[in-house]
Amino acid sequence: MGKTDKNWKDRADKLKAKVKRLEKRLQSALAPATPAPSGKKPAAISPLAPAAFPALPAIAGVEFAAIAAGVRYTGRSDVMLARLAPGSSVAGAFTRSSTRAACILDCQAKLKAKVPAGAGAAIIVNSGNANAFTGAAGQEAVDAVTGAVAHTLGVPAARVFSSSTGVIGEPLPYARITAKVPELAATLAEGGIELAARAIMTTDTFPKGASAEIAGEGGPIRIAGIAKGSGMIAPDMGTMLVYIFTDAKIAPAKLQHLVSKHLDTSFNAITVDSDTSTSDALIVAATGQGPAAEVTSLRSRTGRAFEAALGAVMLDLARQVVRDGEGATKFVEVRVTGAATAEDAHKVAMAVANSPLVKTAIAGEDANWGRVVMAVGKSGASADRDRLRISFGDMVLAENGWRAPDYDEEKASAYMEAQELVIGVDLGLGTAAKTVYTCDLTHRYIDINADYRS
Amino acid sequence: MGKTDKNWKDRADKLKAKVKRLEKRLQSALAPATPAPSGKKPAAISPLAPAAFPALPAIAGVEFAAIAAGVRYTGRSDVMLARLAPGSSVAGAFTRSSTRAACILDCQAKLKAKVPAGAGAAIIVNSGNANAFTGAAGQEAVDAVTGAVAHTLGVPAARVFSSSTGVIGEPLPYARITAKVPELAATLAEGGIELAARAIMTTDTFPKGASAEIAGEGGPIRIAGIAKGSGMIAPDMGTMLVYIFTDAKIAPAKLQHLVSKHLDTSFNAITVDSDTSTSDALIVAATGQGPAAEVTSLRSRTGRAFEAALGAVMLDLARQVVRDGEGATKFVEVRVTGAATAEDAHKVAMAVANSPLVKTAIAGEDANWGRVVMAVGKSGASADRDRLRISFGDMVLAENGWRAPDYDEEKASAYMEAQELVIGVDLGLGTAAKTVYTCDLTHRYIDINADYRS
Repeated sequence: MGKTDKNWKDRADKLKAKVKRLEKRLQSALAPATPAPSGKKPAAISPLAPAAFPALPAIAGVEFAAIAAGVRYTGRSDVMLARLAPGSSVAGAFTRSSTRAACILDCQAKLKAKVPAGAGAAIIVNSGNANAFTGAAGQEAVDAVTGAVAHTLGVPAARVFSSSTGVIGEPLPYARITAKVPELAATLAEGGIELAARAIMTTDTFPKGASAEIAGEGGPIRIAGIAKGSGMIAPDMGTMLVYIFTDAKIAPAKLQHLVSKHLDTSFNAITVDSDTSTSDALIVAATGQGPAAEVTSLRSRTGRAFEAALGAVMLDLARQVVRDGEGATKFVEVRVTGAATAEDAHKVAMAVANSPLVKTAIAGEDANWGRVVMAVGKSGASADRDRLRISFGDMVLAENGWRAPDYDEEKASAYMEAQELVIGVDLGLGTAAKTVYTCDLTHRYIDINADYRS
Repeated sequence: MGKTDKNWKDRADKLKAKVKRLEKRLQSALAPATPAPSGKKPAAISPLAPAAFPALPAIAGVEFAAIAAGVRYTGRSDVMLARLAPGSSVAGAFTRSSTRAACILDCQAKLKAKVPAGAGAAIIVNSGNANAFTGAAGQEAVDAVTGAVAHTLGVPAARVFSSSTGVIGEPLPYARITAKVPELAATLAEGGIELAARAIMTTDTFPKGASAEIAGEGGPIRIAGIAKGSGMIAPDMGTMLVYIFTDAKIAPAKLQHLVSKHLDTSFNAITVDSDTSTSDALIVAATGQGPAAEVTSLRSRTGRAFEAALGAVMLDLARQVVRDGEGATKFVEVRVTGAATAEDAHKVAMAVANSPLVKTAIAGEDANWGRVVMAVGKSGASADRDRLRISFGDMVLAENGWRAPDYDEEKASAYMEAQELVIGVDLGLGTAAKTVYTCDLTHRYIDINADYRS
């Protein structure tokens, strides 16, 4: 290293140290303002997290591997690989964003092409870089990564599905991933699902998993799923990714039907901040490797039990994503009933769940039902002030166009201290209903999202 | 200078810029910008406020009075009265909320009834209580207040317009207002417009006024307006109210036409937090008391000049409301061009302006254009990734489906330090355009809104 070279390096090192010091000072300067009004510390792990990652059953015909490829992060795993046995059915659901990422377009094309399942399939996911808004280089990266997996595992590239989550608009350094594919392939194992769940985390504060088991004809059918997401949605680091595996034998069309059917009550019924990722993806794979007979009818006893179990796993994972909402300290269920139409029920539920004023009131433990009235009013749905009934938990706060006669401010305020809240809105106009799940809006959300990208 | 040499220099320069940004953030973090979350004292004045309340011209035929009636606040004025000369034309625009307040419904009914203007008119406004979601008692309060004004001033009650802004769902203690009407009437004066602007403030940190003067036929035409609002929208305390007065002689239908025409580019083109008040109201009154001849045609030279001046006053007041957005530290103009339809342009502009992730990035002075891509994608409007062009100020950051070739992160970051920002989105699909105005989302917004109601 030359002399000026060394001078510049010294200068850079000194500045780096200064940046570190300033960041630390800034953090502590912001600290007194950071806790929620009630004085809660912004925890490393969401206060709404489950006690531990659940024990998930192994799914016959699925193996997992995870590795640290250094896509963006250091010192942690950031790529997962799942291999699916020959004959596996695959179904999916993806973001409707018009600026969706290359890997999403690729998954959609592959699922539409309906390549025969005979030769097996695979799913590869990286965190740290979303490969979104990366022009033609985006598809190039997808082809390289899925091609490497296809080559190594001996499955058709048309059956290798990929997802990427992380920063938008930066080229994906895909060679770091393809270089690790042989090692990933060599370490595939049935029991690796928790490692996979950890490898796909970004701003998540805990890995998310859920499972179910039902009695099929001839033996049990098992379902196990993992998810990541910490905004519905943060385009930077918050995409929602969900992978669900089952050893059931079921045709792709039937599987897709069930996934689509339960989407509206699970992953499409959650919102953290109303923003939609360019990369949200849900993939469900059924290996057919379990002992149970094929699910040939969705109306059979087994078909109905399978649907219920799959729906429950989807809802469980969706709720876990909300529990890890950026800065969340409260889990909120918004139950809308009595709407004139299903669309109106949806509009009102989302207007309440997305209102910054409702969400900040919840953060402040303020039983401010007036803001719920406001949100109903702005939703665009049919509403009649004099038929509207608003409740928090079991308490009716407002009805007949006014505060409820037995409204008790103290009781309402006490209710708001709970970690899980139910806000009820009955429109009194019809029979349509919709329940959505959200969290509060806190200082921590601002901290996370007003921060630098790196 | 050698290659590694240059690399180290670049690195040092980048770190230097980062040090500068961090020092600035630290400075503002250490300043008393963020009072204790539950410390009730709202705000110093918004950093985006104009230096002083402007000198507004007296409008012939309009008198103002303000008084402290103790509706909710103590130690400040909270009711304003404006008397309009006989023959005044009145036009208006109101919230479309389905849970709108009693005074809004009353104003709409009165404007629709088109009572002859001969006998004069009045406007009475209180802050501190919104008289919204107060059942039948709401209309009772409106009748009492407008009745008292009609009686005292000798004008028909059907020509007395009222607004209320403040807490929702609590009965309006209207006797406190009616008791003060005689005193208000006795102190009416042409020069009282600034006192009126102050009386209607709630969470506002500065009173808002704007004016214009054009040459009419036979003499000048003057316009003066006042506004309040500090969310578009906070249902608690943040309703937007606007009153504009002119001495022009113009028929009510023509006046209403101009008001409606410019609404979409002014008050309907601003958003602080996407929430819509139950009580937003804009009333424009033309007294016909100036020296100029009647504006009989909107296509005449005077007609066009009047339209331009009225539009400019509306836009000026609208922008001032954004400048007082709760917790705002940045004023942001979102310019959407090249949309396939006007509806698409509106959807994209509002999706960007309302995105919590875009708004927190702006608060953090992070040139995170990926979040703008995300907002375009979720808007529901037609968009083509490869035709989209995103710019901050004069800098093109992304085009042709990727980061712009000459993208310069340091330059982009430096731009974000400005207090006024322009985000440009060209969809490259058509000719429709829309510009909206918003502010950033900061800790202070959470402080203000996670606080208790009283």
